[in-house]
Amino acid sequence: MPESGKPILLLHGLWHGTWCWSEVLVRLTAAGRRALAVDMAGHGLRAQRLAAATARPFDPAALATASSPAAGISLDDAAALLVSQAQALGGGAPVTAVAHSMGGTVLTRAVQDAPHLFARAVYLCAFMPASGVPAADYLFLPENEGDLAAASLVADPAQTGGLRIDPASPDAAYRQQLRNAFYGDVAPAVADAAIGLLTPEAPAGLATGASDLTADGWGSVSRAYIMCTQDQAVRPPLQRKFIADADAAFPGNPTEVHTLDSSHSPFLSMPGDLADIILKL
Amino acid sequence: MPESGKPILLLHGLWHGTWCWSEVLVRLTAAGRRALAVDMAGHGLRAQRLAAATARPFDPAALATASSPAAGISLDDAAALLVSQAQALGGGAPVTAVAHSMGGTVLTRAVQDAPHLFARAVYLCAFMPASGVPAADYLFLPENEGDLAAASLVADPAQTGGLRIDPASPDAAYRQQLRNAFYGDVAPAVADAAIGLLTPEAPAGLATGASDLTADGWGSVSRAYIMCTQDQAVRPPLQRKFIADADAAFPGNPTEVHTLDSSHSPFLSMPGDLADIILKL
Repeated sequence: MPESGKPILLLHGLWHGTWCWSEVLVRLTAAGRRALAVDMAGHGLRAQRLAAATARPFDPAALATASSPAAGISLDDAAALLVSQAQALGGGAPVTAVAHSMGGTVLTRAVQDAPHLFARAVYLCAFMPASGVPAADYLFLPENEGDLAAASLVADPAQTGGLRIDPASPDAAYRQQLRNAFYGDVAPAVADAAIGLLTPEAPAGLATGASDLTADGWGSVSRAYIMCTQDQAVRPPLQRKFIADADAAFPGNPTEVHTLDSSHSPFLSMPGDLADIILKL
Repeated sequence: MPESGKPILLLHGLWHGTWCWSEVLVRLTAAGRRALAVDMAGHGLRAQRLAAATARPFDPAALATASSPAAGISLDDAAALLVSQAQALGGGAPVTAVAHSMGGTVLTRAVQDAPHLFARAVYLCAFMPASGVPAADYLFLPENEGDLAAASLVADPAQTGGLRIDPASPDAAYRQQLRNAFYGDVAPAVADAAIGLLTPEAPAGLATGASDLTADGWGSVSRAYIMCTQDQAVRPPLQRKFIADADAAFPGNPTEVHTLDSSHSPFLSMPGDLADIILKL
């Protein structure tokens, strides 16, 4: 079978890993495409163990104050890793890259640094920060009101260096908040399985770093945005702001917009619809 | 780029998930191959939450006795899922399937049931049980002496219905035993990240089920075995027994044998060498 499109690179968001794309990858590969999910710096097989998350006896104060083993990981590091992953997948030829949530911040920097490696940058209810603006600056904007992800942090990132959640928590109210934040329309058993695979901590540097964007860098690469209208982590008005700001900054290269009536995690709740959009890009 | 070989399907072993193949998938896809890792029944995104594994306060007696939410999953179920995954990846044309550890038991049944979907069955330090013999029957043979995986169980499978380990344990000796069992030659930080992603429980039915193998079923499909000489979970003498017994039962279709000087997890300790073997099959 001849390869019918660019290879597809999938990058997860904070706390997730390659595993979250499993049901989408089944569909992309079944359609004949070469597709690969990669771990972000500090995540999945690249995570660094936070002992306080599973201490026995458990100590909430320790979880709230322990220094992050991931504190040294920056947006520069994460973008350099993604560039190397795109280079490997495409063998130097451009790939289609799809980034979820905070993965968008990493994708933006990687595309700016190596635009020749990306045929298209696709943002799935993702951060798509403007030039010079850290992702963290968007979290508490009016457009993101109702966000349940930042509300689920159990430690101060400025103090610990980590964006820390508590996926091992047995507390029913906290677990429900995590489900609402990420998996509102996902079958409860699948949401529980996903929560069991989350890395308890992400490097704060991913959200505090910023990227200078240029017309011959990020601005030169075709981009698409897949909006998720029921998103409780990156709220729909914030998604619209990302698109509007990017189109104002680079009017010659407008964003192609698609929409899913899903929570923050369509890769779990509607993987077939998501794969169909990716395959048609 | 024209597709240069069969699509490659990767199946993990007990407690693991799609995530364990990430570094191998980078290399297979970079080489131009379509490759997909799938979750086994009861694992990864198909796992069912075992609340006792992360209870606060933690209760060792509850972990040792709680009934398994996965107790109802059988080898039949797991094989039917794998057949459907192979069917999806290949679109009905045969795939190359690689199974690790207890994944081999599932692969054997799937190949027996649907030999037309498998161009080759590859066993990576995997169970390759003889006709009619459950995988559990091999665990305590003299050929498996020194096995540290079964030694790491924290509950009685006959009582709970689950093959239960305790990857959240903070106990240094237990954690070291898990590292020795699975990840002896893996960088300690990567081993810790992997332990953090393990599902605490696998369905006992995967090990107690057996498969009747026939010459026109499993016996008709080319098979390869990748031996891991430093394996502390499926011991090298047991790996040799699987090969010898299969070749005695189906002498017209001998096993192609490759060797890695690795622990039970070459996908983490030597992913490049492992990918090279898979690509040359």
